[in-house]
This record gives sequence, C-alpha cells and structure tokens, in this order.
Amino acid sequence: MDERLKRQLAFALEIDKEKNILRQTHLSGGGRRENDAEHAWHMAIMAYLLKEYSNEEIDIGKVMLMCLIHDIVEIDAGDTYAYDDEAKKSQSMREEAAKERIYSILPPDQKEELASLFDEFEAGKSPEARFAKAMDNLQPLILNDSNDGADWREHGVRAEQVYGRQKSTKEGSETLYEATDQIIKKHIERKNLS
Amino acid sequence: MDERLKRQLAFALEIDKEKNILRQTHLSGGGRRENDAEHAWHMAIMAYLLKEYSNEEIDIGKVMLMCLIHDIVEIDAGDTYAYDDEAKKSQSMREEAAKERIYSILPPDQKEELASLFDEFEAGKSPEARFAKAMDNLQPLILNDSNDGADWREHGVRAEQVYGRQKSTKEGSETLYEATDQIIKKHIERKNLS
Repeated sequence: MDERLKRQLAFALEIDKEKNILRQTHLSGGGRRENDAEHAWHMAIMAYLLKEYSNEEIDIGKVMLMCLIHDIVEIDAGDTYAYDDEAKKSQSMREEAAKERIYSILPPDQKEELASLFDEFEAGKSPEARFAKAMDNLQPLILNDSNDGADWREHGVRAEQVYGRQKSTKEGSETLYEATDQIIKKHIERKNLS
Repeated sequence: MDERLKRQLAFALEIDKEKNILRQTHLSGGGRRENDAEHAWHMAIMAYLLKEYSNEEIDIGKVMLMCLIHDIVEIDAGDTYAYDDEAKKSQSMREEAAKERIYSILPPDQKEELASLFDEFEAGKSPEARFAKAMDNLQPLILNDSNDGADWREHGVRAEQVYGRQKSTKEGSETLYEATDQIIKKHIERKNLS
C-alpha cells in the first residue's frame, strides 16, 4: 500500500473517535446524548434538504463536507456546550492544537484542504459557512423541541442566550430563522426557556 | 410555517431514529456497536478523501449524499448483517416498504429525488453507486481490521464470504480493492477468517 493511501486510511480510522464525543443534546424521544458524528451526519442531510432557504447561492457539496468535518477537532478538544461561557474562552486554542494534530495525519494537500474548510466554517464569512452554521444551530433545536425543551431546562438556559446563538441562523437563512423564532417563542411560553 | 418546510422538518426529525439502528460492526478500540448514522457519516467523509481512487469519474457531492441516506430505510427495516443469508432474503421487501413510508414525509419532489438516489445506490449500476458501495464495504473493514477481526471471529465469517462482498469494492475502485485484499489476507493468516 503506498504512503498516500496509508495516511488517508489512518485518518479515516482516527476520525472514528468522533463517535465517542458526546454533546449536551439528547436524541428525540428523550433518548441518550447525541455524539458529534451523529450530529454532523444529521446536519449534512438537513443542509441538502433545506438548501432552497439559503439567503445566498451556495455550493451544497461544499456545505455538506463542511458539516461532516466541522467537529473533527473535538476528538482532542472535546465538545464545548453552546451556553458554557467559561469553556468557550479556551475553545479556539484547544481546537487549533487539535486541528494541527489530526489533519496532519492526512497527505499535505488534503490536510491543507480540510483544515482550510474548517477555518472557513469557523470564520463564518462565506455563504457556505453561513448556511452550515445555520444547520449547526437548527439541528439541535429540532431535537430539543421534540423533547419539550428538556436540554434547555436541564441547563437553565435563558431565551436571550438562544437568541444570541440564533443570530447566525439569520445570516444563513432568513426563512429558517423565522421558523426558529416560532419554536423559541413556544418554549418561552411553556417556560422551558427563562 | 408553510406546509413544505413543515414536511422537511418532520422528515429531519424522523431520520433522527437512524441513530438507534445498531450494526454488527464495533467501533475502533473494541468499543460499542456502531449505529447506522455514524456509519453513513464515516462513509461520506471517506468517499471524499478517497475519491481519487474511483475507477470512473464521479460526482462526489452525489456520492456523499448517497452515502448519507443509504441506510435511512433501516429505521423501519432494521440492519441486515452482510453475512446473514436468511435475513437477506426478505431485505429488499422490508426496505421497499420502509422507503415508501419514510420518504413520503417529504414534499413529493424531494421524496422522488431521494428515493431515486436510494434505488440508484441499491442497483449499483452508476459510477457513483459503485463508489458508494465500495465505501460501504471499506468502512467496516477498517474498523474490523483495527479490532483484529473481532467482528468476523464473533460471527464465524469465512474468507470466501468477505471476498464475495468485496467483489463490489473492485467495481468501484481497483486500488481500494487491492488494499482490501491485503487486509483480508492478513486476517486469513491470523486465523481471524476461516
């Protein structure tokens, strides 16, 4: 087996570990906690299904790939809960180190390509990154909605925090932001969000 | 929220159930059994990374989407182990009924599109389907290889069965089939495959 293929398969094996990184979101039906690989899979399919609602024209293949890889750094850096302000302070440093280690397993051209795609997602400055971020917000929202807001209640999340996060949904999709807004309002009414 | 978006979000919620469909393959490091959503996520990234080895020119965005959705039918039909000849007899009937129920949640145009993509994968007659099938074979192989063939040993799988399945890897990628062949030979030597 040549060196290039060896490195590609070693990377493929390494990212298997993402299936062990747990998020705070629970599966629908009040199931167990979701892991990063499941979340990424779900986001990528949702991106494809909902692409007509993007504010801007997007390369959907690129969005899907962005969704699929956006949490690989969490293999080393761990999941940072969207409403954990303390953990968020060190998030970018932890993720930078993880990016360097994990993507270096790949051949250099693919390391460069995927690490850049991750940076593009993080920066949120391209149409594809904006739409992928909308999916990163919407996917846990529909699960949490299906569980009557249990994840928010568990963490005592405030409505203003959720709105703070959903600002970036609006940048990716006005239509999906409106849907999100309806869902959030319902949960404020039900006192699942304070 | 308009009817179309409602159906799209209902489908997005429905496929969350795929995360509960367990496969026979175990995660690397001798971990727990893998589920279908994790498997699909892994396949889609591998397809992107390994696309240079496809025998034919492929639309990689289409291959990735095919990988992501190919097991949605298993929400109703359950996972059919690759080496369970009895279960394989009723597989296609079970999956047809599942396809009809689950994809009907979507707006009709998207039902048509995704159900056709699933059919294309199943038929294995397009370059994209052939490469996606190679990923469907290669992904569990690298996990099982990393666990010293434990899944094969547990089920008493014979080398000829593995070669039977890997025939379709060759149709998608000669290069990846050669890599597969090396891995299988190693496990025959180690008596993990009889």
